Amino acid sequence: MASDIKALLFDVFGTVVDWRGSVSRELRDFFTPRGVERDWDEFTQDWRALYQPAMEAVRSGARDFVVLDVLHRENLLKLLSKSDISGLNDGEIDHLNRAWHRLAPWPDCIPGLTRLRRRFILATLSNGNIALMANMARFSGLPWDVILGAEFTRSYKPDPKTYLGSAAALGLTPAECMMVAAHNDDLRAARALGFATAFVARPAEHGPGQTVDLNAEEDWDFVADGMDGLADQLLPTP
Amino acid sequence: MASDIKALLFDVFGTVVDWRGSVSRELRDFFTPRGVERDWDEFTQDWRALYQPAMEAVRSGARDFVVLDVLHRENLLKLLSKSDISGLNDGEIDHLNRAWHRLAPWPDCIPGLTRLRRRFILATLSNGNIALMANMARFSGLPWDVILGAEFTRSYKPDPKTYLGSAAALGLTPAECMMVAAHNDDLRAARALGFATAFVARPAEHGPGQTVDLNAEEDWDFVADGMDGLADQLLPTP
Repeated sequence: MASDIKALLFDVFGTVVDWRGSVSRELRDFFTPRGVERDWDEFTQDWRALYQPAMEAVRSGARDFVVLDVLHRENLLKLLSKSDISGLNDGEIDHLNRAWHRLAPWPDCIPGLTRLRRRFILATLSNGNIALMANMARFSGLPWDVILGAEFTRSYKPDPKTYLGSAAALGLTPAECMMVAAHNDDLRAARALGFATAFVARPAEHGPGQTVDLNAEEDWDFVADGMDGLADQLLPTP
Repeated sequence: MASDIKALLFDVFGTVVDWRGSVSRELRDFFTPRGVERDWDEFTQDWRALYQPAMEAVRSGARDFVVLDVLHRENLLKLLSKSDISGLNDGEIDHLNRAWHRLAPWPDCIPGLTRLRRRFILATLSNGNIALMANMARFSGLPWDVILGAEFTRSYKPDPKTYLGSAAALGLTPAECMMVAAHNDDLRAARALGFATAFVARPAEHGPGQTVDLNAEEDWDFVADGMDGLADQLLPTP
């Protein structure tokens, strides 16, 4: 199995980076000196909750493809209004929106990905746009070989185009690609198209009360508790 | 000028890698043990000479966009036939075609690009396809942040779409992007769209008899004799 795999394609939000902790911290650091107090963990969860419905408008064909930065910004404006926060200028709103470009990786990611990269092509297969992924990689030192996914394919996961278009760009068949994700639904979509699958558990992605994706729900090809653990399974012992 | 620039977008064939020396060496290494002798420098030049007409068919709309690997392979088959070389199987032809995935960088590139990356986003803006660029980067250790250009924009330089679509994917205006190329025509196309421009001289790209692109033909924003020299000009002295 592992011997056929040439590339690892990664979900990023939640799987590689801690969006909840990172965005919440940015909001707190921005608003606290301005005297604005809210539950920033909850604000962050609410922001993320608007993510799937916004992408669904694109997936359903109700609107043309726009990159995630645009959807994130629309959703931020909605939430600021709902939270009675006003008076921010465009530059400040852009700065907050780009908090998603500055997400911190889980601690196992840099060492694990660095090891995995010796043997496999590492690609992002995220719904995040290219600028977001490139800026995040520079900010956090993520060692991607190539940024694929939503913007390249002009589609949002779990649309089959996002997966198949990314594999094709690598010149690989789905069977030569392994989807790595902390989300069972992402892996189900990838497996249905012929990808190998690796589940990396992130039980703190949604904070202390997380109820979803705590465990592998199917017999994924690999199940690990982090990228270092995945590297232990995929790489020959030294 | 340099203070406005956020990303450097690189032509790759000729500017970053020595396609002529690399492909010629691969052909020689492949055919010599098989008892086939030709002028492999000339074969390589002929292969490259078919590159522009093949892309022109896409640019003119005569055929739909196909990636460069496909054009390279079609042109290789033509040249093998013209050179009376037969009997290769598909795997051997693919191997030879992927010589373009294994091009060696000019000696100044890894140190120069590594320095430039500390300050600038480094993107490819090549007519090469994504798999070709990603495999080449892994083969040679080229430190790209992101692979853009032809396949992402489904267009071939000097089509304005290739340049403008690549800048847009970075979330940048053309003025925030600098095209880096060893080819005056590439820089002319980029400047016409508002990009900053840097000419990096590669007087040996076409071998000892090179007559084109020996010098900067316009007042490009920067002119250097390699990536280390470009870094000297763009980065503050330590």
